Amino acid sequence: MTGQAISLLETLLGKAGVLRDAADLVRYAADAAGPGADRPLAVLRPASTEQTAEAVAICAAAGLAMVPQGGRTGLSAGAVPPAGSVVISVERMRGVVALDRDAMTLTAWAGTPLQQIQEEAQRQGLDYPVDIGARGTASIGGTVATNAGGIRVLRHGMTRRHVIGLEVVLADGTILSRMGGLAKDNAGYDLCQPFIGSEGTLGIITRIMLRLCPHEPLSAVALLMVEDHAAALECLAQARIRFGERLSAFEGMWPDYMDAICRTWRLASDPFPGQRGFCVLVELRGRDAAQLDGFDDWLGELLERGLVQDGILARSQEDERRLWALREAVGDVDAPMGPHISFDLSVSLCHLGRFCAACDAALILLPQAGRVIKVGHLRDGNVHLLVAHDGSDKAARLISEAVYDVVRAYRGSVTAEHGVGRIKRDWLAACRDPAELAVMRAIKRALDPQGLMNPGAVID
Amino acid sequence: MTGQAISLLETLLGKAGVLRDAADLVRYAADAAGPGADRPLAVLRPASTEQTAEAVAICAAAGLAMVPQGGRTGLSAGAVPPAGSVVISVERMRGVVALDRDAMTLTAWAGTPLQQIQEEAQRQGLDYPVDIGARGTASIGGTVATNAGGIRVLRHGMTRRHVIGLEVVLADGTILSRMGGLAKDNAGYDLCQPFIGSEGTLGIITRIMLRLCPHEPLSAVALLMVEDHAAALECLAQARIRFGERLSAFEGMWPDYMDAICRTWRLASDPFPGQRGFCVLVELRGRDAAQLDGFDDWLGELLERGLVQDGILARSQEDERRLWALREAVGDVDAPMGPHISFDLSVSLCHLGRFCAACDAALILLPQAGRVIKVGHLRDGNVHLLVAHDGSDKAARLISEAVYDVVRAYRGSVTAEHGVGRIKRDWLAACRDPAELAVMRAIKRALDPQGLMNPGAVID
Repeated sequence: MTGQAISLLETLLGKAGVLRDAADLVRYAADAAGPGADRPLAVLRPASTEQTAEAVAICAAAGLAMVPQGGRTGLSAGAVPPAGSVVISVERMRGVVALDRDAMTLTAWAGTPLQQIQEEAQRQGLDYPVDIGARGTASIGGTVATNAGGIRVLRHGMTRRHVIGLEVVLADGTILSRMGGLAKDNAGYDLCQPFIGSEGTLGIITRIMLRLCPHEPLSAVALLMVEDHAAALECLAQARIRFGERLSAFEGMWPDYMDAICRTWRLASDPFPGQRGFCVLVELRGRDAAQLDGFDDWLGELLERGLVQDGILARSQEDERRLWALREAVGDVDAPMGPHISFDLSVSLCHLGRFCAACDAALILLPQAGRVIKVGHLRDGNVHLLVAHDGSDKAARLISEAVYDVVRAYRGSVTAEHGVGRIKRDWLAACRDPAELAVMRAIKRALDPQGLMNPGAVID
Repeated sequence: MTGQAISLLETLLGKAGVLRDAADLVRYAADAAGPGADRPLAVLRPASTEQTAEAVAICAAAGLAMVPQGGRTGLSAGAVPPAGSVVISVERMRGVVALDRDAMTLTAWAGTPLQQIQEEAQRQGLDYPVDIGARGTASIGGTVATNAGGIRVLRHGMTRRHVIGLEVVLADGTILSRMGGLAKDNAGYDLCQPFIGSEGTLGIITRIMLRLCPHEPLSAVALLMVEDHAAALECLAQARIRFGERLSAFEGMWPDYMDAICRTWRLASDPFPGQRGFCVLVELRGRDAAQLDGFDDWLGELLERGLVQDGILARSQEDERRLWALREAVGDVDAPMGPHISFDLSVSLCHLGRFCAACDAALILLPQAGRVIKVGHLRDGNVHLLVAHDGSDKAARLISEAVYDVVRAYRGSVTAEHGVGRIKRDWLAACRDPAELAVMRAIKRALDPQGLMNPGAVID
């Protein structure tokens, strides 16, 4: 049955459309969370929505599990194929199809890299404001399937807010197409929503229509050193009163993070030598210089009041890059840190300080936990907690249990933005009660009764 | 069985919690679309989520259909109970529960009037930016259940964008609660989304957590008269380049509308006596006067270029009210217009001009169609098309068929913001293909397998 299905797929998709070489299978068995334990039977690379639909119908008839893949930059193993499955990659469906300046919308194939979308929008004086480190490789389809967050959520929200149309192939090969580009449409259930953030478990997204926003080319950036969370939150409140929606980033770097990247590992130069504090990266964005006025006065006032202990205001784009490099150094910690777990937690903003202290306390009680560093999107209550360990499964499990117990106690989320994938699936119950899990399963069964779409991801 | 269930409900909810008087049943049998043909068996008024859950469980066990009700201001008969059903009103669950200034969130019971939410937010220097004419009566729960739009969608989006938490009672009495107040949460499917805009067909919303935004107390308003749609769209493009997100409303009033309200019915005073054109109401909003700078210069430039034929800039709040009164006069046309159908259509912005011309053409071909007026949210491609007729069912059907045929041809929506309810259910296929309708039914079956939640609304 499987052999027959694969040969039907080869006929349908042609030589370029089906990869079966061992080296290819290894490559497509991994995402940014690491290599998978199993190899897919084949990698299908359809070139259109219709081809995807036909390929899915063949797989469904043969009972073959399917794992949708974009740029494989996910951090939760959501695109890692289990044994006996086929990968369906959207990489050959690539390119911007249309950009409507008046309506401020952009239509693209799912395999288009995020960065290409950002650049094509900017060429028209517009912007697609979702931004993540993996922008050059991540596919727009993958960012929609995982409801990507990133550094500008404070100002622009998650990916969900920007999606106004989707074309999706369902688990039985049916094509669901909402690409009419309507700004307002309350004619029945919004059928884009279930697929945004579903991590490929309900269907395969092939085309996307996005809402763009005006491009804001100018920025102002400062690094603040404050006493603690409470002072950081007071700075946030002040910044919001003063700059409103001009505020585009408010990133937190805990003292343990600053120590690690500046002193221990020297991944970036120390902005405040000899001082140890909680650092906040503040960014404003605007269309013209007047919109950014008053930033240095504001910083001066905070220093004078003693709310900020020290501060650095970027005077040039080079300065801005240097300050952002502190935040982005988190991407370089894998090698110096050694084996570690990277948590992607969120809690209500008012609990963030105590929550982080509780995680620290739970981890210091655990001999298996090594160095802990914390960095994150402060405004969003989203902290990336990285915990080193000895590389053993036991240490990883004990650390996860300890951290997720704190998440449960503070009613947080086990994943703020990276998604559940396969890595966090068994921890979902730390932040979802049985009623919620039952509704998720009911939705899954309704749209994928055979359970063939990305099995093992998100829910069991 | 039914009698037994009602007596159980009376025990559970007490005297104030179950209405059965004939006058009450008549009152709760209607929403703003008009009186219903049938009376509910009873009106249940639970005072908490738990009471709602117990009441729903009793109804579900007895196989009783349930119709959730908020402020009954809907325009699509979505809250009108069919024969043999009970109404479950959220009106006793009322009040703002919490407002977190730092996190900019507000938690309220579903029965709280929209206006109360706006006012409590504004007292804290914040704003809940969804605004509709029925703000004093509409319940926040109803606006979430119908994904309400209104006059500020251009700047702030529909209700969906502002909901960050829901407590919902499912069709079997299970409570689903997502009220953790997490700004970012990708831990599995977003279980708020299915209920937003589902018009009470998937469950009863009892509590809501909303995202607030900074209050913008200052405004600038102008009325422009332009040649046609194309000129209006050019003004929109210019306004966006110049004012970006300061632009908070861009409302269109077609010549037929201006004629009707200013000349025929004298519901408002004529802003441009002796001239006939397409009128656009433009509003900017900001936190301080500097943010509104340049509005009169801009208007002057458009007049000089001839893009705008005539214009009125409001010099006072009284002026602003007078200009807005032109737009809001649509609320007073029921009496002078007589029997009519009020369509709530949307199309892609680039098609709006031709679409309106096509509707006009289809209606002039139809002897049964009387006066046609058009007014709407121009930027959103959302036109409220009102068509007078002789009051007969036949005329109403012929007019609906003619208009919805045009909607189908232009790939528009049969309802941009008012929802499907019971009035537009049979027209849904004009904008939703069989695959979409099948997925909607699958979702409905998954969450309400007995079909007891608001039966007859949205989908059959």
